[in-house]
Amino acid sequence: MRKVSIGLIGFGTIGSGVTQVLLKRRAWLRDMTGVDIELTRICDKDLTSDRGVRVDRKILTPDANVILNDPSIDIVIELIGGVHPAKEIILTALSRGKDVVTANKALLAQEGKAIFEAARKFNREIRFEASVGGGIPIIKALREGFVSNKINGIYGIINGTCNYILSRMTDENCDYGSALKAAQKLGAAEANPHLDVSGMDSVHKLILLAGLSFGAFRKPDEVYREGILEIGPRDIAYARQMGYVIKLMAIAKRSAREIEMRVHPTLIPDSHLLANVGGLYNAIYVKGDLIGENLFYGEGAGKFPTASAVISDIVDMAKQTRESGHLNYQLLDSRFRGNDSRERGNDSTQDNELKIKKMDDIESRYYIRFCAVDTPGVLAKISGILGKNGISIANVTQKDERVGGAAPIVMMTHSAVESRLRRALGLIDRLPVIKGKSVAIRVESL
Amino acid sequence: MRKVSIGLIGFGTIGSGVTQVLLKRRAWLRDMTGVDIELTRICDKDLTSDRGVRVDRKILTPDANVILNDPSIDIVIELIGGVHPAKEIILTALSRGKDVVTANKALLAQEGKAIFEAARKFNREIRFEASVGGGIPIIKALREGFVSNKINGIYGIINGTCNYILSRMTDENCDYGSALKAAQKLGAAEANPHLDVSGMDSVHKLILLAGLSFGAFRKPDEVYREGILEIGPRDIAYARQMGYVIKLMAIAKRSAREIEMRVHPTLIPDSHLLANVGGLYNAIYVKGDLIGENLFYGEGAGKFPTASAVISDIVDMAKQTRESGHLNYQLLDSRFRGNDSRERGNDSTQDNELKIKKMDDIESRYYIRFCAVDTPGVLAKISGILGKNGISIANVTQKDERVGGAAPIVMMTHSAVESRLRRALGLIDRLPVIKGKSVAIRVESL
Repeated sequence: MRKVSIGLIGFGTIGSGVTQVLLKRRAWLRDMTGVDIELTRICDKDLTSDRGVRVDRKILTPDANVILNDPSIDIVIELIGGVHPAKEIILTALSRGKDVVTANKALLAQEGKAIFEAARKFNREIRFEASVGGGIPIIKALREGFVSNKINGIYGIINGTCNYILSRMTDENCDYGSALKAAQKLGAAEANPHLDVSGMDSVHKLILLAGLSFGAFRKPDEVYREGILEIGPRDIAYARQMGYVIKLMAIAKRSAREIEMRVHPTLIPDSHLLANVGGLYNAIYVKGDLIGENLFYGEGAGKFPTASAVISDIVDMAKQTRESGHLNYQLLDSRFRGNDSRERGNDSTQDNELKIKKMDDIESRYYIRFCAVDTPGVLAKISGILGKNGISIANVTQKDERVGGAAPIVMMTHSAVESRLRRALGLIDRLPVIKGKSVAIRVESL
Repeated sequence: MRKVSIGLIGFGTIGSGVTQVLLKRRAWLRDMTGVDIELTRICDKDLTSDRGVRVDRKILTPDANVILNDPSIDIVIELIGGVHPAKEIILTALSRGKDVVTANKALLAQEGKAIFEAARKFNREIRFEASVGGGIPIIKALREGFVSNKINGIYGIINGTCNYILSRMTDENCDYGSALKAAQKLGAAEANPHLDVSGMDSVHKLILLAGLSFGAFRKPDEVYREGILEIGPRDIAYARQMGYVIKLMAIAKRSAREIEMRVHPTLIPDSHLLANVGGLYNAIYVKGDLIGENLFYGEGAGKFPTASAVISDIVDMAKQTRESGHLNYQLLDSRFRGNDSRERGNDSTQDNELKIKKMDDIESRYYIRFCAVDTPGVLAKISGILGKNGISIANVTQKDERVGGAAPIVMMTHSAVESRLRRALGLIDRLPVIKGKSVAIRVESL
């Protein structure tokens, strides 16, 4: 019987969920896995609030160093969130021979390089299943299940708050403000929802997914990002009429020498499984060269789904011996990066030149809404400018509505280059017949 | 650098996919995982057919004993399918200290007990990710990702052939025969499709999923089974009008002391993600007490998806040391079986009395179609018999069609006990106004 000793740092919602499960299911997990997991210490600044779980007060401490200095502790669970002092805690834990489990996507996205290097240097392991998709075992799938695949694309609905707000706007035909309020009332959005609605949380998670998939472990400022604040019920309704749903998508795709990484509102066909992912749910759609298309769906946050992910990391680590466990994190920066192996023969070539494609250079179809004065010749002017910029129109509808004296013209383009579209829209928006800024939203066929 | 030596038995479609990937990606997998996987031997009766992959002829053998007798081989991959001689090969491999990877659901469902006992006795491991859901990492999710969950229900579309046939019948409004022919033409159904369309293949897979989820490792004859042969385009169309899709579902649910295990055509709401799983795709919907609801979707069969699953098993085994690896298969018969742990306190209680619920005792809503002579009072007679048997009607529609002089009456019941429904239908079918056997299909709300 192997025994592992756990030090938990951060006794908030997820920490108390982890504690509850580890205590109640200790014997069960021991019988099933052959490893006895002892929760040795819990650290939190606040040791008085009721967490709905009874723990021996002797194991509580307000000082993380009590855990970091305890040589008997094998695994440190970091659940305090934020960059500091989480980074220092994790680096210290690794340097003292402890493995680490964390749910901290912001930290890993911003400081992952230093942390993964430290893990390698000290021959320790760091796991982070709980950092993306709550209870969905997507990290495990990418690291282990799809280990022999070249991943070609990841398309994720990975922020429950944004998905709740957009789903509510779609279902109730309401605006962003009232959907946000409803989300806050439900506890589905923070009082300050910026990290979520700006798309930044999705960027953090996408960095981890892309890192595992392409070995391209990037910084948040390298990833294009648009939040959901500009999306209105009008565009949601027009998109629906055309057979599309608007979701905040986190997208990472690879071509031969480049990867695209971007987070933005996206029209997806309403017949696609991702279009049916509503409310607080998350889903990640993965394209791999062996598996084809896979989708994972589940609760993307919450006390117990996230605790389930943390505990799966603990059990995996506990079952491994030192000799077998320490290599896994290297996946992050050693995943195959070249062209299709079947064309290249032996796959060992590593292409460290894989670059992020400039947003100007990406190609996409676009949903566009213009607000135009309803006079003859308007459409000719708009389509003339689009045509000169190489943008061809798949279909166009003039809506029977008036918004501030102008008529909405809604258009779907064929595939176009982003920079050309931006240039065309700049020109169109300066036409005297155009009232207000045109709206353009990217479309993914999937 | 650890090195593992592989002996592959069965050089068919999947075997050649595994071979192709292991050879082409050997260096990549080595760099990424720290384990060098050498394909040492391949065994097949047929050594002359072109498999589309070039292998050194010296590693080929028609004799499985060459692999079983080779002490340098660490892992045996069994991909010949069927019960014999696959069972003997696996038992011999285990007894000679080799770990085993297999995709053989029929064998594991029928002879799993002997095989898992042998693995335990010889301190070896057996893995079978490829046996359910092709490239979908569902076995890994249940064993590892959801390790701390009590699983409450599994709802799977796990036979691509049946799903293709039913999807085609739905989309093209055609009958079973022509959908089967189309499937056979596409290679999506065998010349003899019995194992698939009878539901037996789904039973085999459900036994593995339920074994991992409930520790209830059952025999095929303990699982209720209905195939798709009785499903006609008429019922598919009527179900759609009511907002449902008909799928062949493999269902395993638990209550306090019992589990339900059954495979049969099922109406599911067309708004549910599972309803949108079309063609050859598979999906498994899992309900766990911590994770809530999760769904996994992907290609359920095929050369490369299945090869991806086999290789993930190989890599997992190769990364483990002997000390850490051999316990995993015990999950199959030691998973927690009692009531909700949060009510019961410590989870160590194992309830070996968990029984399969008799089909007579299950409760379900039902779609029913009667063929009745169109005379006054017919509905009163039918609903009178239903009422006397405790079956209440949620809605009923008499269709504006005539089939052999009779009018279809389509009904949805509230939840009813199976034995009572069967008794009522038996009585109704003996009424002179009823022409032909009534059709009843179970409904899952999910």
